[in-house]
Amino acid sequence: MAPEPLEGIDQPDDGGALAAHRAFYAAFEARDLDAMSDLWRHDAAVTCVHPGWPALHGWASVAASWASLFGGSERLQFILTDERLHRVGDVCWATVDENIIQGAHGATVNALNVFEWSDGRWWMVAHHGSPVAARGGEGQ
Amino acid sequence: MAPEPLEGIDQPDDGGALAAHRAFYAAFEARDLDAMSDLWRHDAAVTCVHPGWPALHGWASVAASWASLFGGSERLQFILTDERLHRVGDVCWATVDENIIQGAHGATVNALNVFEWSDGRWWMVAHHGSPVAARGGEGQ
Repeated sequence: MAPEPLEGIDQPDDGGALAAHRAFYAAFEARDLDAMSDLWRHDAAVTCVHPGWPALHGWASVAASWASLFGGSERLQFILTDERLHRVGDVCWATVDENIIQGAHGATVNALNVFEWSDGRWWMVAHHGSPVAARGGEGQ
Repeated sequence: MAPEPLEGIDQPDDGGALAAHRAFYAAFEARDLDAMSDLWRHDAAVTCVHPGWPALHGWASVAASWASLFGGSERLQFILTDERLHRVGDVCWATVDENIIQGAHGATVNALNVFEWSDGRWWMVAHHGSPVAARGGEGQ
C-alpha cells in the first residue's frame, strides 16, 4: 500500500510522515519508551546521533540510548520551529529546530530525521541532532 | 533512467551514490567550490548544517556557506570511517565519521548526508554535520 496523503496539513502529499515526525517528539517529551520503540524500525540499519554523542547504529544501541535518556531526572520540553519535510517515494526526511526547555535552561538543537515507508507505515530510520551554538561558528 | 549499480564496491546496489558521497568529501578537502556546486541540487529544498551552525535552507544560503568555509586559511583533511549508505528507491542517506585533521589539531564530526536521484544522477540535498564530544555526553 502506498503512503496515503493526510488532510488538513500544509504538506498534503507527505502521506502521514508529519504525523510520525510529531509522534517522535511527543514520545521524546513524554519519555515514553514504548511509544519511541514503536516508531523505530528494529533492525541493524537504523542510526541515531544525540548531540555530542558518537553515532549509534542498530536498534539495540539506539534503544539503549533512549532508555538512558529517559531514565534521567530532568524533563525536556520541545518547541518545534522551522519544521520542513521532504518526501521522495518511500523516504521522507525532515529538518527541524528543537527549541528545548530543560528546567530553567534553554538550548536549540537542529535535527535531521529520516523515515522510510514499508509495510503500510512510516518507520523512523535515522535521527541526527546537533547543538546550535549561541553564535554561529566560522569554521566546520 | 534508474540508478545503475556500481561494480567493485561493497554496496553494489547503491547505483553510484557512494561515488557521489566520496566526491563531496573530495570537493570539501580540495576547497573546490565548483565541484561542490556541481554536487548539490540548486533549489530551495536543500539543507545544510555545519557543526554548531544554525540550519541553512536553500541553495543560495548553502552556497554562501561553502564560499565562506573555503575562503578560510586553514586546510582540512578528512579521514572517513564507518561510512554506511542506505538506499531506498531514489533516495540514499549516508552516515560517516569525518575524522578531520586541521593543522596540528584533530576532531571528529559525524555526518548524515542525503542524496536524491533525478535526471539520471544523484544530487546532494542535505548535509548535517555535528561535533562528536571527546567523551559522550549523558543528556540530549
